[in-house]
Amino acid sequence: MRVAVAGATGYSGRELVRILARHPRVEVVAVASRGEAGRPVASYFRSPGLPERFVEPGDLPRAGAEVVFLALPNKEGAALTAELVAAGSRVIDLGADFRFRDRARYEAYYGPHPAPDLLPLSVNGYADDPGFAAGEARILGNPGCYPTAFFLAMGPLVRSGVRPGLVLVDGKSGVSGAGRALRADLMAAEMDANVVAYSTPGGHRHTAEMEGTWGAPVVFQPHLMPMDRGIELTIYWPGAEADPDRVRREWTAFYAGNPFVAVLPEGVMPSTRRVYGTNAAELAVARDGRNGTLVCYVTIDNLGKGAAGQAVQHLNRWMGWPADLGLRVD
Amino acid sequence: MRVAVAGATGYSGRELVRILARHPRVEVVAVASRGEAGRPVASYFRSPGLPERFVEPGDLPRAGAEVVFLALPNKEGAALTAELVAAGSRVIDLGADFRFRDRARYEAYYGPHPAPDLLPLSVNGYADDPGFAAGEARILGNPGCYPTAFFLAMGPLVRSGVRPGLVLVDGKSGVSGAGRALRADLMAAEMDANVVAYSTPGGHRHTAEMEGTWGAPVVFQPHLMPMDRGIELTIYWPGAEADPDRVRREWTAFYAGNPFVAVLPEGVMPSTRRVYGTNAAELAVARDGRNGTLVCYVTIDNLGKGAAGQAVQHLNRWMGWPADLGLRVD
Amino acid sequence: MRVAVAGATGYSGRELVRILARHPRVEVVAVASRGEAGRPVASYFRSPGLPERFVEPGDLPRAGAEVVFLALPNKEGAALTAELVAAGSRVIDLGADFRFRDRARYEAYYGPHPAPDLLPLSVNGYADDPGFAAGEARILGNPGCYPTAFFLAMGPLVRSGVRPGLVLVDGKSGVSGAGRALRADLMAAEMDANVVAYSTPGGHRHTAEMEGTWGAPVVFQPHLMPMDRGIELTIYWPGAEADPDRVRREWTAFYAGNPFVAVLPEGVMPSTRRVYGTNAAELAVARDGRNGTLVCYVTIDNLGKGAAGQAVQHLNRWMGWPADLGLRVD
Amino acid sequence: MRVAVAGATGYSGRELVRILARHPRVEVVAVASRGEAGRPVASYFRSPGLPERFVEPGDLPRAGAEVVFLALPNKEGAALTAELVAAGSRVIDLGADFRFRDRARYEAYYGPHPAPDLLPLSVNGYADDPGFAAGEARILGNPGCYPTAFFLAMGPLVRSGVRPGLVLVDGKSGVSGAGRALRADLMAAEMDANVVAYSTPGGHRHTAEMEGTWGAPVVFQPHLMPMDRGIELTIYWPGAEADPDRVRREWTAFYAGNPFVAVLPEGVMPSTRRVYGTNAAELAVARDGRNGTLVCYVTIDNLGKGAAGQAVQHLNRWMGWPADLGLRVD
Repeated sequence: MRVAVAGATGYSGRELVRILARHPRVEVVAVASRGEAGRPVASYFRSPGLPERFVEPGDLPRAGAEVVFLALPNKEGAALTAELVAAGSRVIDLGADFRFRDRARYEAYYGPHPAPDLLPLSVNGYADDPGFAAGEARILGNPGCYPTAFFLAMGPLVRSGVRPGLVLVDGKSGVSGAGRALRADLMAAEMDANVVAYSTPGGHRHTAEMEGTWGAPVVFQPHLMPMDRGIELTIYWPGAEADPDRVRREWTAFYAGNPFVAVLPEGVMPSTRRVYGTNAAELAVARDGRNGTLVCYVTIDNLGKGAAGQAVQHLNRWMGWPADLGLRVD
Repeated sequence: MRVAVAGATGYSGRELVRILARHPRVEVVAVASRGEAGRPVASYFRSPGLPERFVEPGDLPRAGAEVVFLALPNKEGAALTAELVAAGSRVIDLGADFRFRDRARYEAYYGPHPAPDLLPLSVNGYADDPGFAAGEARILGNPGCYPTAFFLAMGPLVRSGVRPGLVLVDGKSGVSGAGRALRADLMAAEMDANVVAYSTPGGHRHTAEMEGTWGAPVVFQPHLMPMDRGIELTIYWPGAEADPDRVRREWTAFYAGNPFVAVLPEGVMPSTRRVYGTNAAELAVARDGRNGTLVCYVTIDNLGKGAAGQAVQHLNRWMGWPADLGLRVD
Repeated sequence: MRVAVAGATGYSGRELVRILARHPRVEVVAVASRGEAGRPVASYFRSPGLPERFVEPGDLPRAGAEVVFLALPNKEGAALTAELVAAGSRVIDLGADFRFRDRARYEAYYGPHPAPDLLPLSVNGYADDPGFAAGEARILGNPGCYPTAFFLAMGPLVRSGVRPGLVLVDGKSGVSGAGRALRADLMAAEMDANVVAYSTPGGHRHTAEMEGTWGAPVVFQPHLMPMDRGIELTIYWPGAEADPDRVRREWTAFYAGNPFVAVLPEGVMPSTRRVYGTNAAELAVARDGRNGTLVCYVTIDNLGKGAAGQAVQHLNRWMGWPADLGLRVD
Repeated sequence: MRVAVAGATGYSGRELVRILARHPRVEVVAVASRGEAGRPVASYFRSPGLPERFVEPGDLPRAGAEVVFLALPNKEGAALTAELVAAGSRVIDLGADFRFRDRARYEAYYGPHPAPDLLPLSVNGYADDPGFAAGEARILGNPGCYPTAFFLAMGPLVRSGVRPGLVLVDGKSGVSGAGRALRADLMAAEMDANVVAYSTPGGHRHTAEMEGTWGAPVVFQPHLMPMDRGIELTIYWPGAEADPDRVRREWTAFYAGNPFVAVLPEGVMPSTRRVYGTNAAELAVARDGRNGTLVCYVTIDNLGKGAAGQAVQHLNRWMGWPADLGLRVD
């Protein structure tokens, strides 16, 4: 199958190209980057079978790709998406523009939607959600990294009928999560041994996606960690009605047959290192028995399951291929 | 003034010796280590003015030190403490044995107290608490690292009369916090890019100290970070009655004249890097206005303010010296 | 094809199992570990298709594997190798015991050979050497990590007929190169921001393999770096007769059609990060024109091309499969 | 004594301000930064006793400082230096402009000298060189980081009369050595697990300073390491006439009474970690007995002994104060 990538030199885009180049059923027919158009693809990638030179994103509608992945800054891919859809391509968008069918929810955090007329052609969901199907949509909105980690833990509980309440979500991310734009505070000499919160509680835009999953208030506070990639969420749920045994049971049922999501036994905690470079996730749960607070723990790779890995997993599902085709679990 | 250190080759002990060697008013007359007794002190320390060889901890009562710092595993310093007190020394204990005047509270987390008869001679408190005074005590229990960070944020609020409620404390620590014992999961090749929770919510022994400060339930969940030192606490307080302005006001009043504790302006978050290697602390506060959850942020160096730095700050106060004598703020 | 792994929980062994689990033409029929025998393989690996439990290395001759990989400490695999050969298996040994056909050269650095009678059944060489063929051998000695990096740069020059002279080899390795045994100096809290030489110049056992390639004295000095994996060699050749253009020409010819080895253009230097987690290598060359010293630069992943990756590449060649089957280049 | 700092927000400048703020005999009367002029000094520094706001570098001649430290980009401090000298201040320049009395040697690597008429007023040297004295000079050129490490090892040998020959110098530096300018390749997400050579052999400008010390060709190849600060040099000297015992003897004699430089016993190698954050240095030596190559090893902190620490050590000597006043050795 012919695929193409726009935004191939950002962190998510690079990971995507590397995964697609190893995927046994796709051919990468075009790799686009505004900054690198015309330059050799080999200056970024060694994988065999890639096109020789980067093209402009605007060239992609003529590339004859059946599926085009967009790893562009939010709002910058909308016009291209319209052209691609018109040209008959399907689009998997790693940006935020198609993560909400509900335009108002999007606009509350992101401002005016760049292409509201495309929303009806789009669908969004989590690749590990057995209830999700892209079906006849033309555009698939790939979820954000933190919301994916959140869904992996809390989505199955919602589906099982728990009554959600206020949760406090402490997010920890490697610096690639902050993107590739030059920032003084993200220089290597500044991030060594540095842990620092950013954004404000509930102010991060991923909060909207989490609350969309949970249906109750989410206080989300992300932090940067001194490492390149990886996300850990610790989710505190005071007064939870569910106990750890039930949570593990729901998770195990929800992820039955899923090769990526590991429900850890009691006493073992998720590690960002064990999911590094993969499309895997680890889940654990514990409770403070003295006051009934339930705590869920999740790790994923923000560039894997949190971005490029999940996008390819979506492709696999959309095409009816095995879920783990071309993807690492270990 | 003549001082001595027991447990000088652990991470806290080493930091302590380095600080004391630079302190303008003390002379380190003995440096003890069970494992290194008899070997040259220069194999660990380059600082001038230190004794030539390590001695056994049991030799310290004869060292003629006015103040002896203990950086020993919990319970292992009790017999020595008794001897030191009998010999007329004052003791500053970096372990847990004298962090509670209330024996029951200690025993709930640590098991039988090794020297209950010494408790009446002891006092414990935070060196940044203007209300604390060691007075005529013979033994000073230096607080734990996480509880110190917690106190710095929440202690002033308690004193100001807020009505405490359940708080969720997400702790993040560099690996030196796990101590110097050999563990496979703490090898450098295993901790690279690794973030992992440890202990269980409310199960970590430092919970007792935090609840002692707060007077309400504390759900404490610590995590190891891929860095050598530094602690960040993010403290979630759902339904807090205090707003950020009030919190900053209370902090500013409580720490007036304190050279170590920086109350950051709105929009700036504490960084472990900016307090690395120092006795400083950074504090910030924000609120999720949608649901009234208050969030406090603290950073300290776990070996500085969280252990050796605070111990020397206690010495400075006990002796009536300037608070920052021999200590770094930057 | 049925394969098995002994020593599956060391760093090289783990990498090997992960690669083999993704390899499209092999089935891993047994995974052995002395320390973990009887325990679930899932406690270390998530990859599907692996056996359920670890077995003892001594069980492997009965596992019916056509090829058995040994990732055991030097000398500990010799008896097992004899049994495996007797049982009809081929052996790819990641240890040092079969890296030399010349027993004396082995014994000069490693002491008495544990199985000299097996040497005639063995062959050794570099998987990227187009002139190497395992042929009818029963045992293949997989090269050491540093010697592999050295060969990649200097092997093609020797083959092209340069006259070798004294070279100075500065080796830099991530800490996984030091193995998984517990050592206080390899704890994460000790390796942060640490660069430190180890062994002595020419004293490291890999020197023998390098001099076997080069045919002239090699002064090799390795260093540990504060990172988990990756090797960089900078090779100084005073008075070299070859100039950078010729070196690049020889490399390009030697690695024609090789998907793993990238000869970088003038002005670009090899990066350990760009080969992280892969079986790739990067090569560059420069010269100090003032005094004729040639300098070659190589990067590989010590666990990839330097161990497990190369072992699988050897398997691919031995079986006549495409060189990059199951291996990452990016 | 009144001192001032220009360029106070770069990495060296920040370290300098922190050290000076703790120095018992100086008062920092002005802190200058082009980018931050007018903003509160407290946004960068917590140390007590600093001025309230940053000023422009051009304001410094009116600040009444007896000594002004310049931590500015090369060539940018020349006009200011002239004004400061005219105003009666002494200048310690951390840039390259006054590291050579010989203008031609400077210009070979740096291009036209910005203030050749000031050269006669200047002096340059290493603060650990007992033979150096700033005397009546008005300007002191503080050496470069790599050349300082090189001098520490090789300077004493030259003074002892060895006959120098070609040496190969493998330099390894933390990323702060590359300065604070924004560069994509120095972002934290790009430097994780990255070791990469930069510049070309003999092409780095510090080569001139090293050859000035050594009097024979120096092939210098620097590398960036995945850490914030620290320098390790491994210096290969083929055909050295000196043996390790003699080298240790010369070093020990040269550094007698020097509190900063540690000559390590045989078998112990210098560590960047043990000198992190200090003005200390570690030295070791070994030899490849098979071919007579001598290898010297040095570690320093590039921002300590390699920049700000040495500058303060120079101040101490210039003023006749104890060498280690305000400086850390541990």
